[in-house]
Amino acid sequence: MDVTVAIDCMGGDHGAHVTVPAAISELQHDERCAVVLVGLQDRIHAELARCHVQPGPRLRVQHASEVVAMDEQPATALRNKKDSSIRVAAELLKSGEAQAVVSAGNTGALMAISRFVLKTLPGIDRPAIATVLPTLKGETYVLDLGANVDCTAEHLLQFAIMGSELVACVEHKARPSVGLLNIGEEAIKGTEVVKQAAELLRGSELNFYGNVEGDDIYKGITDVVVCDGFVGNVALKASEGLAQMLATYLREEFNRTWYSKLAGLVAMPVLNGFKRRVDHRRYNGASLLGLRGVVVKSHGSADAFAFRFAVQRAIEEARTGVLTHITDRMSHLQKIAAA
Amino acid sequence: MDVTVAIDCMGGDHGAHVTVPAAISELQHDERCAVVLVGLQDRIHAELARCHVQPGPRLRVQHASEVVAMDEQPATALRNKKDSSIRVAAELLKSGEAQAVVSAGNTGALMAISRFVLKTLPGIDRPAIATVLPTLKGETYVLDLGANVDCTAEHLLQFAIMGSELVACVEHKARPSVGLLNIGEEAIKGTEVVKQAAELLRGSELNFYGNVEGDDIYKGITDVVVCDGFVGNVALKASEGLAQMLATYLREEFNRTWYSKLAGLVAMPVLNGFKRRVDHRRYNGASLLGLRGVVVKSHGSADAFAFRFAVQRAIEEARTGVLTHITDRMSHLQKIAAA
Repeated sequence: MDVTVAIDCMGGDHGAHVTVPAAISELQHDERCAVVLVGLQDRIHAELARCHVQPGPRLRVQHASEVVAMDEQPATALRNKKDSSIRVAAELLKSGEAQAVVSAGNTGALMAISRFVLKTLPGIDRPAIATVLPTLKGETYVLDLGANVDCTAEHLLQFAIMGSELVACVEHKARPSVGLLNIGEEAIKGTEVVKQAAELLRGSELNFYGNVEGDDIYKGITDVVVCDGFVGNVALKASEGLAQMLATYLREEFNRTWYSKLAGLVAMPVLNGFKRRVDHRRYNGASLLGLRGVVVKSHGSADAFAFRFAVQRAIEEARTGVLTHITDRMSHLQKIAAA
Repeated sequence: MDVTVAIDCMGGDHGAHVTVPAAISELQHDERCAVVLVGLQDRIHAELARCHVQPGPRLRVQHASEVVAMDEQPATALRNKKDSSIRVAAELLKSGEAQAVVSAGNTGALMAISRFVLKTLPGIDRPAIATVLPTLKGETYVLDLGANVDCTAEHLLQFAIMGSELVACVEHKARPSVGLLNIGEEAIKGTEVVKQAAELLRGSELNFYGNVEGDDIYKGITDVVVCDGFVGNVALKASEGLAQMLATYLREEFNRTWYSKLAGLVAMPVLNGFKRRVDHRRYNGASLLGLRGVVVKSHGSADAFAFRFAVQRAIEEARTGVLTHITDRMSHLQKIAAA
């Protein structure tokens, strides 16, 4: 076994019913990994029994007596629930028993607890949330998606470094291109912070492309897009909302008349191909980058198919040593700055 | 004639070739309006001849010897091109010869020139750009879309007032609901500015719904969504990029095999119905709100069909007296504040 993943089995809208089958499925497909299922042990054992699976050398259950609610305040969860499944999973990561944590739970609590237990990497002020999105050319990684508001230019530079190392590792790209999200391509556009960040990025060793605009994300202009968490969160959620609206409209049009229903049957294989291609479940798993440990957040509404993608992402990050690469890059930069 | 629209015929990717036919089409459909076609008169007359139309009491040509390029710096255009089609159109609005201006030209130059010539309404610090977007429930107006970055809470309140009056007038809604774009529904989320803006909105006479998130725009949760121009611009452009990507994917899937091409033919009427429903051309026309005059910006790539929607929007705003309503509301608020 090269990577052991601690899975918070209690988080998300469906809890163990989704997380346990996803973990089992990943174990079956990836023979090098192991999992620790963390949470209320009765619940987890019941789910294992339902799946006809026994614990073994690659599958262990770790009891955690408390569960953080999806709408609980992060600070309250951190202070009052010292035996929550998120907390216990993070402790496993810290002790070295696990090399990655995956949770579909409360994002704020996951971030607060991970930060408290694991601390940030040297040179990183704030962890950021990064996700991968489909584009016309392939995929683009965007960060931050909501962990930080009111970022400084230095924070944006750190996000760029982390995003760049992430893509270099998990996508095996030598020098990922980095775009700075702005409201125009010209250097004079945008806020003071964004203009300063562009200066810092131009002076960095990163493969900085320059400013990109909102539509450039889905055009796949750069491998990484860097932005303030407020902006990234709004852009991502607006995209989710638009995709849902378009899907609803398309469904309604194909249900409108007898002819359109028939046309829908004929077009079904094509529409299914389209659906597979833009299936957001394949992009499930946002990385909490900048912590001293791999932590991946699954969408709360993920099903087992989607949750497994988040588990795979966590394994891939641990396996390719993303955090070591970020640390090395930061210490290299600090040496340059000190010289 | 109740409303005369000054049309900048030179702006946009296609210039007079699109703007003149759109103006003629609107004249034919709306017998109460008149238009002044502003720009290089030879170009405009050539286009009128091509359309077999003569100037008359409802259609006049106003020569303007200069054209602002789409990539020209707004400040340069303002300073150096005193006889640009945008400038001449704005002057017609100021003199009262026209009641609205429509341009598909350079957004920054249109804003800078309009602001310089027309000035802002009493109580309004900064004009904002507002557009209407389709939602699951109907339509939502979003502002600001890029005129302002680094907004204060007071600016966001002003945007809310302007957006609310705009919807009240053109959509004939008594008390439009207003949402504040944030990264979580809870009051504790977001930047300091957004939190302060929420306080101001709660204390205002507006029908304030509270915080909304990016996906709520397309869910149609509120009639108006208020945000900083940086955030709004990114959200809108990301939406455009995503819609284009999905359209490309859908086309590719229907072109993949002989079967899918056949299925595409069968499904054509349904897909056309879908396309009509989400046709962004029907939503063309962003309002530059807060100026002492109705100014509407068309998308630069608009065709005649789309450009006419922008012209209609301008006429509707002038006809329903949006600016008077904003002015009345601002003076009412100032009286309350002074009392």
